[in-house]
Parts: sequence; C-alpha cells; structure tokens
Amino acid sequence: MQVNIPLKQVIDNSYSITIDQLPQIELDTKVAIVTNPKVAGLHLSYLLSKISVKELYIITVPDGEEYKNQASIDTILESLFNHRFNRKSMLIAFGGGVIGDMVGYAASIYQRGIDFIQIPTTLLSQVDASVGGKTGMNNKYGKNLVGAFHQPKAVYIDPHFLTTLPSREFGAGVAEIVKMAVTFNKEFFEYLETADLKDPKVLQEAIKQAVETKASVVAQDEKERGLRAALNYGHTFGHVIENETQYKTYLHGEAVAIGIIMANQLAIKLGLMSEDEALRVENVFKKYNLPTNYAISNTETFYETFFLDKKSSDANITFILADGIGGVKMLDDIAKETVVSVLAQFGAC
Amino acid sequence: MQVNIPLKQVIDNSYSITIDQLPQIELDTKVAIVTNPKVAGLHLSYLLSKISVKELYIITVPDGEEYKNQASIDTILESLFNHRFNRKSMLIAFGGGVIGDMVGYAASIYQRGIDFIQIPTTLLSQVDASVGGKTGMNNKYGKNLVGAFHQPKAVYIDPHFLTTLPSREFGAGVAEIVKMAVTFNKEFFEYLETADLKDPKVLQEAIKQAVETKASVVAQDEKERGLRAALNYGHTFGHVIENETQYKTYLHGEAVAIGIIMANQLAIKLGLMSEDEALRVENVFKKYNLPTNYAISNTETFYETFFLDKKSSDANITFILADGIGGVKMLDDIAKETVVSVLAQFGAC
Repeated sequence: MQVNIPLKQVIDNSYSITIDQLPQIELDTKVAIVTNPKVAGLHLSYLLSKISVKELYIITVPDGEEYKNQASIDTILESLFNHRFNRKSMLIAFGGGVIGDMVGYAASIYQRGIDFIQIPTTLLSQVDASVGGKTGMNNKYGKNLVGAFHQPKAVYIDPHFLTTLPSREFGAGVAEIVKMAVTFNKEFFEYLETADLKDPKVLQEAIKQAVETKASVVAQDEKERGLRAALNYGHTFGHVIENETQYKTYLHGEAVAIGIIMANQLAIKLGLMSEDEALRVENVFKKYNLPTNYAISNTETFYETFFLDKKSSDANITFILADGIGGVKMLDDIAKETVVSVLAQFGAC
Repeated sequence: MQVNIPLKQVIDNSYSITIDQLPQIELDTKVAIVTNPKVAGLHLSYLLSKISVKELYIITVPDGEEYKNQASIDTILESLFNHRFNRKSMLIAFGGGVIGDMVGYAASIYQRGIDFIQIPTTLLSQVDASVGGKTGMNNKYGKNLVGAFHQPKAVYIDPHFLTTLPSREFGAGVAEIVKMAVTFNKEFFEYLETADLKDPKVLQEAIKQAVETKASVVAQDEKERGLRAALNYGHTFGHVIENETQYKTYLHGEAVAIGIIMANQLAIKLGLMSEDEALRVENVFKKYNLPTNYAISNTETFYETFFLDKKSSDANITFILADGIGGVKMLDDIAKETVVSVLAQFGAC
C-alpha cells in the first residue's frame, strides 16, 4: 500500500533589505540581540536607542572566526532556553558575518526554527553574508560545513556602522562587491573602476548594487542548486588559502581577492578572459590595498585541498570563472594539469 | 533605499510512504545507514539484502532515548565528514523514533541539508515519528528542543520488523494510533475497539489509517502553526510524566497513553467528552496493557512543569482535548484551578 504526502506548497520567505539609517524597530515579543564585545562596545547603545520590544536580552559571544563553532552556538541556545524563548521569539544578529551566520543557524534549530533579523556591521556582511539565508558554523573539518538555509525576516544595513571599520576589513568587503560586479554586472564593475568607495554616497550606492545583485541571484536559486554557486567565484581558491594559513593571515575577503586573481588566471588560460580584463580587476583590488598574490609552496597539496571544499563532489571540482567582465561560467571538467600549471604561476613569489 | 528579495516559491517536498515488504532500493550515490547495535543485530542483514548503492557505510549510535543528544549527532556528522559525504549523498534512518529524529536532524544540518530516507522499525515510529519531517534531539532543557523541519525523500514501512518488537513497545505504538483515531477519525477508532492489532493484516490496515491521518494533517500544516499541534493530544500531560520520572519508567507511548487519559478527564470536566467515551478510549489501552494511571505527588509542581514544554508560550498553555470521539479542540484559556482539580484525581492512587 502507498500513502502520499502532498507537500507542494507556496512558501513565502520574501523579505526586504533596508539600506539607510536604522529605523525604529518595534517588536511585540521577546527579543535577544546577539553580538560580540567589540561591536557591543562600539554600537550597542546606538542600536538600543532604536529598539523597542516586549522583553530584551543581550547575548555576547567571543569575537572572531575561531569562535564560529558549536561552543558559541551552545552559548546562544542556552541563553534562549534559560530565558524561556518560545517559537514566537526573535533573534537579532548584530555584528559581522560570523555573528550573522551563527545567529541564523541558532535561530534555524532552536525549537525547530524561530525568526531572526540581520543588522550587519561590517562591509562584507552588509553586501554579502547578511543577504540570502545561508547560515552555519565551522568545525574541525572546515568552514560552514554544518548549517542550514534559514532566511531572515528583515535586513537593516546602516552604513553608519562602517565609520569605525578598520581599513583591512573595509577592503575585505570590497572584494565581495567586486565579486558580484565581475560575475553579474559589467556596468557596476566599470563604476567601481572609477568610483571612490570611501565617499559615503558612493559607498551606499555600491552596497545597494551589490545587494541587488545578490538578491536577484538568491531569488532564482535559494538553495544553491545551480546559479547561486556562481557567488563562490574566487572562493574555491580562497578557501584553500585560508585553510593553508589556518585562517590567521588573511581576512576572508582578502583570501577571496587572491582567489579571484587565481581564478582569473585560469580563465585567461581557458580563453574566457583577457589579460587586460584580469588586470582591471587586480587594479580595483590594489586601490583598496587588497592582497593579490600568495606563495603556493606545493601545487599538488594546494590542488588536493580543493577536494575538502564542500562544494566539490567526489570526482570533480567545479571552478567558477569570469566569462569576460560581467559574465560567469561554471566548469567541472578542467584537467588537473591545466589547474596545476596556473597554480605554478603563484609558486614563485 | 530598499531592496526586496522575492522568495515566494513553490516548494515540492512531497513524498510517498510505502507500507509493505521492503522493495529493492537502488541509489546511485554514497549512502550511510544509521542505526543502533540492537536493530543492526536483528535486521541489518535483511536490509542489506534489499539495498544496492554506489558506496555504503554503516554508522551506529547507542540505543536509547538518553543518547538522543549532541554526542550522537556528532558521531553521525563526523562519520559523514570522514567519508567525504557531499550534498548529493543520502542517509537512511534505520531504527525507531530516536534514530529517525536524529538522522533527520543530522541530514538537515550537514552541509546545510542533504536527503534522507526513513525505514522505521518500531510501531511507534512507523505510525507517527517517521512521517512528517519533525527532526531533533534532546538536551538538558528537555526533549526535541533543538531540531528542524526536514522532510524525508521516502518512508518505507515494513511490518516485518515488528515481529521482533517487545510487547511494551508494541503497546507504545498503539497509543499513538489511538491518538490519531480519537482526534481525527471516529470510524477508525470504532475499528480499533473491535480489531485485534496482533493480527498482521489488521495491523497493516491500522498502520495505513494512522499514516493517512498523519499525512493529511501534515499536508495541511507542515510547520505546526495550527492544526498539526492537535497531534500533541496527550503529549502535554505525557511530557510532564516523562520529565517527573526522568524518562526511565515509561516508554514515550506509555506516557502518552496516561496523558490521553488525563486530557480526557479535563475534556469531561469541560463538557467536551462523556464519561463513556473516555472509558472506551481507556478500554482500548487496556487491551494492549498500556498504563492508564499515574500517581501525581504534587499537582502544583506538575502544573508548573507544563511551562517547560516548548509548545507553550509564556503566559498560556494550550491544551489539546478530544471533542467527543473523532474531534479535537485546542484551548489556551483553561483556568489553572480547573486543570489542577483534574490533576488531583490522579493524586490518590
């Protein structure tokens, strides 16, 4: 005998992203702001002046990628249990990508899922990590290997928070903006070539363009079954660099910048990009003091480490390459020798 | 400025439940069967004779509700990482409700979600736990407080596995069958009053009816925003009983049976059910040697423990009561005195 469960449903996870000064946020429920001590010291009083809720709790977890782990998730969950949060309660992620990813993940598993809001405070999280519902944590096997797709109810991007951002972190955010432009929007890239992102008006416009690009990609492929993987441009290489340097030498966005440079060299080799186009990308990175080179000590080891990336299936690695400026191609049949010969260019610096 | 992410999508999580001898299962992917030593000893060779996959792994976790925890989830995840499972890999939950819930949860968070199949081996998991996509684990705060909604790709219910089921576990499954009948299907309840579930043909029919009822409820309210909560009939009381006895005295289904008896007494008090109807439910339980009484030592403490249940919001407890046989009412405004006076009936045994 057979019983069918028809679960073909229209699910509306739509939400809006506000890029502007933080509005007044009023919520008639129990709310926890989850942040780290650094962000709290700089910006919590400002956030509190904008928030009015039924019952408010502040949860802090240690600052840094090395704390994006089960222990921090447990800290968040335990606080929610101790304060008897229920299914109608709400979390607010207040910080960079690490905070956003962890709070989203905690929200996704607490009592099988509660709502959360993103208030990203770094450029990288404002243009990329806070949008799209990817949540998760790291473990000893790698980054973001445990997690869920869980969309926020709203994202508030207030460029005011960026005034205190260290310049390296600003650059790291620029790398993700460039990623969006090179793969999906030629005009946007040309704008970035001449614009000065240190100008607040220009920055706000660039954030909007980056977020629009990301939103459009996510709307087409929420769970990364195809197109969305294009947003990993530069990341396949970048993850190996982060792994080899134990996440200590480079910020994520910096490793992505180097990864994009590497991907572009591979694209040149395959005739997808011209030397000149690759140089234009590199020039934008240099404007914001992003690193563009990395000494690969062993190309074989570097290549093998690709396979630890969760986006790779057993036999093949999918490389995401720029197809000129403003285009993207995903290829899973590039010969190992081709890739290694490109990696060898980075061995001798 | 505002950017909208339109994520109104048609998501098809439909799947079918086969109630019959296990068919040949062929999967062209990496598969892990997750089970416990007891089930493996009894039935793994039978399952293996039915399975043909690309690459097969067997993961065992300790048997019992006390191991439905983070340590077991970690055991499963670590094995998947060590064997480089990817997003196209598949898990098979092979065991009772504990295994099913944990495997579903592990599948929901491994690399942000992979597929899994349920092959339940106890009556309780065949008629209830394996159907509907509720997954999770326990922690020190209570049962199933961390988890996700993650639907299986298929459920295979083979009554053959029940031939080795201890009679107490059989009864525990009957309690959940009765739950479905009393709340949603009067004819089915009348069938259960006269039928002998020890007869394999009758049992298969009862499983089918129970699963159909559950499937219909889940299809209407997958994420338990309303109707699905009715399936917690008997559970509000049952959870307190399990909590007070540290999950050691009663099987879950046994605590639910007592919980249903308590809920029915409350329903009588509120005029929703007749004494005779409550007695008919009790008689079915007695046929399968289910417990129907519990000595409440302190009605105040018992009442307070309701609030630890995650289904309750801050101020109110929602009681799920039979509205006669075949009907259900959810009430969140029952006076404490009314409830306590009913609890007092159970104090003096």
